[in-house]
Amino acid sequence: MKHVHHTEVKLEEPKEQGIKDVKVRWLISDKDGAKNFAMRLFEIQPNGHTPLHQHDWEHEVFILEGNGKTKNKKDEKNFKQGDVFFIPPMEWHQFVNTGEKTLKLLCLIPYR
Amino acid sequence: MKHVHHTEVKLEEPKEQGIKDVKVRWLISDKDGAKNFAMRLFEIQPNGHTPLHQHDWEHEVFILEGNGKTKNKKDEKNFKQGDVFFIPPMEWHQFVNTGEKTLKLLCLIPYR
Repeated sequence: MKHVHHTEVKLEEPKEQGIKDVKVRWLISDKDGAKNFAMRLFEIQPNGHTPLHQHDWEHEVFILEGNGKTKNKKDEKNFKQGDVFFIPPMEWHQFVNTGEKTLKLLCLIPYR
Repeated sequence: MKHVHHTEVKLEEPKEQGIKDVKVRWLISDKDGAKNFAMRLFEIQPNGHTPLHQHDWEHEVFILEGNGKTKNKKDEKNFKQGDVFFIPPMEWHQFVNTGEKTLKLLCLIPYR
């Protein structure tokens, strides 16, 4: 069994076009023996955001701390602590921190 | 995209031998189109616990609120808010609420 506090896991800076002030901790990954899906914790600074993008895998997201909005190519919608998202494959999405403190969210993705 | 606050998802009472004062919300499941893995939120009352059991699938767990301890057949170990667990298939495990408020944790499991 792996058991750590999330802050013990290395904070990495993802390099991706369209990303701003986002860091990530890979809490559980294939390096831990997880074969089916990975758990990542994203930390997004005020006004920071993930890229507006789409891809052929899903996201399962839980908002741990902070406030923000999701955007696609048409709409935007506010979210808050304790919100949950299922983003199906190929759906456009972006997470933006509209609050004044760090936005922390779990985002899980499948391996395959 | 599914977007809800976790408290909007039905709180169900799992019926399982060895379980005490545990309720569950299936935040994301195959009913939402999630084909690879499911996200559940467990709410465990003080002195409540999940069963001491093993099974052939893994768990990915994040402690949202509260304190407790994990037990297997030999040891026990305390945990707190913000802790993360990867429990590989076939490993014995139990989550016990040793605190004074509701223990809330996310537990994700694969679909296969």
